[in-house]
Amino acid sequence: MIGRLNHIAIAVPDLAAAAAKYRDRLGADVGSPQALPEHGVTVVFVDTGNTKVELLEPLGADSPIAAFLDRNPAGGMHHICFEVPDIAAASARLLSEGARILGDGRPRIGAHGNPVLFLHPKDFDGTLIELEEISPPGNR
Amino acid sequence: MIGRLNHIAIAVPDLAAAAAKYRDRLGADVGSPQALPEHGVTVVFVDTGNTKVELLEPLGADSPIAAFLDRNPAGGMHHICFEVPDIAAASARLLSEGARILGDGRPRIGAHGNPVLFLHPKDFDGTLIELEEISPPGNR
Repeated sequence: MIGRLNHIAIAVPDLAAAAAKYRDRLGADVGSPQALPEHGVTVVFVDTGNTKVELLEPLGADSPIAAFLDRNPAGGMHHICFEVPDIAAASARLLSEGARILGDGRPRIGAHGNPVLFLHPKDFDGTLIELEEISPPGNR
Repeated sequence: MIGRLNHIAIAVPDLAAAAAKYRDRLGADVGSPQALPEHGVTVVFVDTGNTKVELLEPLGADSPIAAFLDRNPAGGMHHICFEVPDIAAASARLLSEGARILGDGRPRIGAHGNPVLFLHPKDFDGTLIELEEISPPGNR
């Protein structure tokens, strides 16, 4: 069911400082900050060639990563995202296997404009997993 | 400097149960457990096509992930690993930029048989970063 690791998201308290560390210390391919107010984050993409790291800083009063940074003020790994070809089929399989989907249990449109869902970290060894529907190349 | 994301490592309290969840709930390509007593872990690889997830369970009395699981009994994301073509050059650059290398500061042989080093999570937003020397394909 799951395909490629689309990204790993890291919540950071200071996006400019984090981006500078990836660029200067690690020599990584670091993009420009993109504000996504409807998702409550500003994001910088680090392109590793095969996948990407997303550095996330809270944006606005209701950021979905604010509580995580309250618990982890220095920042930390927030979630990983796997691609699936059909989010409805993925959702049905997961529910039939007893996994819990966060929120109202229905896919919503994620930060990349594709349908996504998040799985309860208690069902996956303390790891918050996002699934994102990415159409196979032949259907794009 | 850094290249591909080689893997993300997730520490788990019960490797068989974690592997079953990735296989049955997520339909992932899950390998067989491999005991690495010299590294204090048993590992299961989850192949995502573009990279891999490594599920790690402590092995033996001095496992490097035992303290992490004491703090996070349910498990959690432990580290991410980026490939570098030259670990000595990477080490020199990081030290010149003020980053701290864990242990004695020198690369050692990692779980895949290649030279590795770990960077202090306080220098990278609460994220433990491993660098692994992977020779470019032309030099393998």
